[in-house]
Amino acid sequence: MKIGFIGLGIMGRPMAQNLLRGGHQVTVWARRAESMQPLLAAGAVGAASAAEAARGAELVISMVADAPDVAEVMRAVASAASPGLVAVDMSTIAPAAARRIGEELAAAGVDFLDAPVSGGEVGAIAGSLSIMAGGSAAAFARALPALQCLGRNIIHVGGSGAGQVTKAANQIVTGMGVLAVAEAMAFASKNGVDRARVREALLGGFASSKILENHGQRMIERNFKPGFKSWMHEKDLDIVMQTAHELGLCLPGAAATAQMFNAMVGSGLGEEDSIAVLKLLEGLSGQ
Amino acid sequence: MKIGFIGLGIMGRPMAQNLLRGGHQVTVWARRAESMQPLLAAGAVGAASAAEAARGAELVISMVADAPDVAEVMRAVASAASPGLVAVDMSTIAPAAARRIGEELAAAGVDFLDAPVSGGEVGAIAGSLSIMAGGSAAAFARALPALQCLGRNIIHVGGSGAGQVTKAANQIVTGMGVLAVAEAMAFASKNGVDRARVREALLGGFASSKILENHGQRMIERNFKPGFKSWMHEKDLDIVMQTAHELGLCLPGAAATAQMFNAMVGSGLGEEDSIAVLKLLEGLSGQ
Repeated sequence: MKIGFIGLGIMGRPMAQNLLRGGHQVTVWARRAESMQPLLAAGAVGAASAAEAARGAELVISMVADAPDVAEVMRAVASAASPGLVAVDMSTIAPAAARRIGEELAAAGVDFLDAPVSGGEVGAIAGSLSIMAGGSAAAFARALPALQCLGRNIIHVGGSGAGQVTKAANQIVTGMGVLAVAEAMAFASKNGVDRARVREALLGGFASSKILENHGQRMIERNFKPGFKSWMHEKDLDIVMQTAHELGLCLPGAAATAQMFNAMVGSGLGEEDSIAVLKLLEGLSGQ
Repeated sequence: MKIGFIGLGIMGRPMAQNLLRGGHQVTVWARRAESMQPLLAAGAVGAASAAEAARGAELVISMVADAPDVAEVMRAVASAASPGLVAVDMSTIAPAAARRIGEELAAAGVDFLDAPVSGGEVGAIAGSLSIMAGGSAAAFARALPALQCLGRNIIHVGGSGAGQVTKAANQIVTGMGVLAVAEAMAFASKNGVDRARVREALLGGFASSKILENHGQRMIERNFKPGFKSWMHEKDLDIVMQTAHELGLCLPGAAATAQMFNAMVGSGLGEEDSIAVLKLLEGLSGQ
């Protein structure tokens, strides 16, 4: 398939490489020209603008920083779109922003999917991302062969915005999950009980989760390397809280978690993995 | 083994029955004499008091409501204890209370284990409880053959109080886990996205947990039957918050969760499963 790929950061670069490996013809564009070099070396065509990356493409994928970037890039894509173009944004942005962009593109004859991912850099490199897509069934079917080069567990969750809603729900559950395990660990050691045995005991029952297993083990080892940086989780929970505000929705657990991630960024832990919330809890109680 | 068993409520009754099935000689006592009938019919001996249940026993197990009950019952046990008696309390009480009771019993020559459980009525009946034990290695070894009739995943986590600390940590993780999944579900449907597809998408990644799988499914089916009643989870998180207060420990996620379970009890949802926190969230945002 002829694919335009826009945004070549930590996530976008390996994703574009996986599309090339999958046999697709990929034209890339990134704001910083030097980001394009490794892709050109791997066989991609370089474009001079987002519009040029979209020209003649059957599918355009964007992986950029936030909603204004997605809106700007997608306006350029629409200006150069061939009839029948499907545009897929895989960045994490607010559901309302994704719906607005979808409407703008529909007016320009472009079918838009919001398809954010989870799995991080490791998943992007391995081509094992979870992909949560919102938009029309026709657009999903058209994009699927490309998405299958990028991830496993690719789910069409609903109409426009549904992918971002699902990603936000995912960040609620993972954020609260990380905080829950950190609180349990801080509670155990403040009480003089061995964290590893507590983790082991809890894995045998309803407290069992991937986060207790994986992130819990890293907390015990005090390995705070990202993984998933806390400032990124803070940004995602900011989307959750802003959406909750717009809908009049009460999310007390997500709110407490968002505040803790805010405090991590504020206290210089933003570049560490979100599990470093354990350090914040320990610091707050003299551990 | 000659075992005295004290407390024959929803949990205690099937646990005592499993000890009988395991071939142990069981003498039972309960405050309400009628609770003893099914056990007597199954081959247990009835005692007229807690002290009498302990007389001549090698092991005494209690499963009662709260810390004052445990303290009272264990004082009676100590008054009648044979040399070498091991006493095991399997109720959920505060770690500090368990440690105090352990010290009192040690002074009377009784070796005490705090060994709370998780798994609920279903686990008690099936003999599949998770058991988290704190106390001496010698007492744990003595009690183990009896505990193996009651549960799987039986872990000696540490010294006196460590079982209750682990149970409290378990209730932090499960309470926050239930609230997290309920918030994700409320977020999805307030945004018009199908909850079942969101659950399916999230099970494929790091958000995956037993609670998302089991409790999430029951939320989708709106099956709020206990399971584990919300007033009981509220009581357990009250122990967590009281312990956090005593230790100067900051637990913002557990605190938000405890407040939601308080609100459930206050708004008449106390007898429903803790997953009915979803109804509370929905009610708070007009769903």
